[in-house]
Amino acid sequence: MRRVVQWGDCDPAGIIYTPRAVEFAIETLEAWYRDVLEASWASQPTTHGMGSPVVHVECDYLARLPADQPVALAVYVERIGDASITYRIVCGDGAEREFFRARVVACCLALPERRPKPIPETLRRRIEAYAAAWGNGGTANKGR
Amino acid sequence: MRRVVQWGDCDPAGIIYTPRAVEFAIETLEAWYRDVLEASWASQPTTHGMGSPVVHVECDYLARLPADQPVALAVYVERIGDASITYRIVCGDGAEREFFRARVVACCLALPERRPKPIPETLRRRIEAYAAAWGNGGTANKGR
Amino acid sequence: MRRVVQWGDCDPAGIIYTPRAVEFAIETLEAWYRDVLEASWASQPTTHGMGSPVVHVECDYLARLPADQPVALAVYVERIGDASITYRIVCGDGAEREFFRARVVACCLALPERRPKPIPETLRRRIEAYAAAWGNGGTANKGR
Amino acid sequence: MRRVVQWGDCDPAGIIYTPRAVEFAIETLEAWYRDVLEASWASQPTTHGMGSPVVHVECDYLARLPADQPVALAVYVERIGDASITYRIVCGDGAEREFFRARVVACCLALPERRPKPIPETLRRRIEAYAAAWGNGGTANKGR
Repeated sequence: MRRVVQWGDCDPAGIIYTPRAVEFAIETLEAWYRDVLEASWASQPTTHGMGSPVVHVECDYLARLPADQPVALAVYVERIGDASITYRIVCGDGAEREFFRARVVACCLALPERRPKPIPETLRRRIEAYAAAWGNGGTANKGR
Repeated sequence: MRRVVQWGDCDPAGIIYTPRAVEFAIETLEAWYRDVLEASWASQPTTHGMGSPVVHVECDYLARLPADQPVALAVYVERIGDASITYRIVCGDGAEREFFRARVVACCLALPERRPKPIPETLRRRIEAYAAAWGNGGTANKGR
Repeated sequence: MRRVVQWGDCDPAGIIYTPRAVEFAIETLEAWYRDVLEASWASQPTTHGMGSPVVHVECDYLARLPADQPVALAVYVERIGDASITYRIVCGDGAEREFFRARVVACCLALPERRPKPIPETLRRRIEAYAAAWGNGGTANKGR
Repeated sequence: MRRVVQWGDCDPAGIIYTPRAVEFAIETLEAWYRDVLEASWASQPTTHGMGSPVVHVECDYLARLPADQPVALAVYVERIGDASITYRIVCGDGAEREFFRARVVACCLALPERRPKPIPETLRRRIEAYAAAWGNGGTANKGR
């Protein structure tokens, strides 16, 4: 996912407003569910009887990210559990430089019952294929 | 409604980001529905079988509104129609100075059918009492 | 500008949150300044000694705009004044259907002095060329 | 800091949109800098020749947080380093129930040079006094 940091994404310091980076990460993950898994968050309740609420998010800010900067955001699968998945979302300039790295843990919830359920097999297979193809997001900051 | 313009409300020019002023206005109107009308947007579908979607919004930016500025936001009822209401939301410093003025038109929609319906009598009476007590938001910019 | 309405753009009614449509319009206008005028808001103070603050915004909501809906946003120049420009931003499905129409008035401000100044000739010529090529955004709602 | 979860804070699932919780936490921290430390982020460059950029943020989502829910947000100081501070921000219902817990690490940056610098003594003393009075935010989730 490519985008340009916009004026309204930034605060008076001229760089991306802290929570907005987390929103970039979540928006990237949402686009990934929609375009790669073909299971958008809005469609999951009806097509899979489930939702994918986020139970944990974290973000390390590595470099100043100013307005007008083009960025590339990539999703990696760090770990596939029984009823939860850990993602890495990395925001860089498309080359060497990284601006921030987020980690997001989403679980799988049966709807409308609202209890944890295993990830449906169709989705699990797509996620595993993606993870096999693209890796887990590298080792940087792994020691946390 | 009183609040302080926060760091994240502002853009790199150090003043409130244009759409954020509209969000201030809508958040103020929402608080007004909840606290004055006692009909929060989230509760309307179940308690009144209706929703209050906004069909028009406009905002005039009158003065620079920087971070750390305390502001007071007031809701006025400009016009009560059969199935729609026009509000004025004025944001000032609590004294003479005005930062922005918004106008919001919300209609009354029967749910789940999604067709216009007259404003319920209970709500209409509360709105009329409020309008009688607080006026219509003054004459500034009225010629628009 | 094309995008997909995201989960986080929407409110509990499942459609775009009212102020978020205004933000879509402003983000589209910002991208237009950057990509078409080659004068991004962040670069204007240093390259042109100016800023382009918005003094008025309005938006008509014409149709329900739900999550996962792909939209196309277009910028039209409605009027070029001496020190201000009126834009139309139309959000549709790329075909016949329109979701919302915004109007934005931006003025030209000398920086750091903060007083109105005429639009620089280079920019004016680009804006006029664009207006000649793409029209003024049509007649719908023009009677406002 | 007390507030009510608003309609626009929520997504189509009817609960707070994931990144919005992080924004609640950052807004609470900002209000704390302004009201408790008397060193708002906007004023720090001129009054202390410094800024307080966030280098890490994380958030655990513990319970559904729906629209109209009143919440109380509290800031705790978890650790005061030489040039960085770790905060805990806890969002609950004011009684027993917790909705989310965030951790934010902010560093102290000399401006305009943009290099780490020790926290000014005046601020350090205020932070220590606050930490002594209010504790470190408890043990829940401490094992992370």
